[in-house]
Amino acid sequence: MKGGSAIENGEASRAATARAGGVNRGLSIFDFILRLVALIGTLGSAISMGTTDETLPFFTQFIRFKAEYNDLPSFTFFVIANSIVAAYLVLTLPLSIFHIVRSGSRVSRIILILLDAAMLALLTAGASAAAAIVYLAHKGNARANWFAICQQFNSFCERISGSLIGSFGGIVVFILLIFLSSVALSRR
Amino acid sequence: MKGGSAIENGEASRAATARAGGVNRGLSIFDFILRLVALIGTLGSAISMGTTDETLPFFTQFIRFKAEYNDLPSFTFFVIANSIVAAYLVLTLPLSIFHIVRSGSRVSRIILILLDAAMLALLTAGASAAAAIVYLAHKGNARANWFAICQQFNSFCERISGSLIGSFGGIVVFILLIFLSSVALSRR
Repeated sequence: MKGGSAIENGEASRAATARAGGVNRGLSIFDFILRLVALIGTLGSAISMGTTDETLPFFTQFIRFKAEYNDLPSFTFFVIANSIVAAYLVLTLPLSIFHIVRSGSRVSRIILILLDAAMLALLTAGASAAAAIVYLAHKGNARANWFAICQQFNSFCERISGSLIGSFGGIVVFILLIFLSSVALSRR
Repeated sequence: MKGGSAIENGEASRAATARAGGVNRGLSIFDFILRLVALIGTLGSAISMGTTDETLPFFTQFIRFKAEYNDLPSFTFFVIANSIVAAYLVLTLPLSIFHIVRSGSRVSRIILILLDAAMLALLTAGASAAAAIVYLAHKGNARANWFAICQQFNSFCERISGSLIGSFGGIVVFILLIFLSSVALSRR
């Protein structure tokens, strides 16, 4: 009787493990897709910001009016942060595939959550610093006597504003990734 | 024999559960302490930025040269973001105590990881936007014709630079909190 119930328990727990494994596999596939989405977003942001420049059609003898992303340190940081995060995402894609195959792994998931959180902070820092400067470029600031440079560099401003989108999309995806990993970890 | 081994297994697994519970209790206490640290950091940042103003000792008939945090939208956002995160930390302290008492809870830990990740993003966004403007205030930007206002508002600049520290400390603590929660979740 006792032995029988132990065997039944064993079978029940094995079935539960198999079920949890199936759900975890689904979560891992979703994780893989989200990483691809974030990769496209951050890579797009980095390229779009990095290739932006505008030369105004008038110039004096000494000065050519030209705007590039590396005129402003925040934009340089934005490009670097997005590139690092994109590279990180490429490197973690194999790990994501590994989680689809072996859905029970624990240590690799914990490390992934830690690194994801650090990358979330890096990406947010880059996107937010760039957004603060983009806002300033659009509106200027009367108290600090900073002029709205977007009045001259129109298409430059449109490009840099647009390139923020991919980055902010990436932030949302990273929060989702951490959430998914924690769910997968709890169902192990 | 089979029954005996089942009982032994049961005892062994109960001992393992108790051991995991002890470790989880330690992690939860550490979690509580870290939340207090982050609370002090973010609250200090919000208050220190929010109370900063400087009036220059000279003025014309029409203009008084006065610098306050709400002259710059990024600093207002910084104060708001830090206040929200501090309020969130106060609200999650009881949940942290609950985890010390009942170390096996699962759903509340997953929700906590999700909210922690969102708050990490909010705090980083506020700190980074403010840092971008503080950098600009110190260095200015020759290409955009933005002047370094710190040359006039010296003590204002020192205060706002200092108030960033608590916020960036909070970011590191949040990454640690997410890591600790994921470890506790995996040992359940």
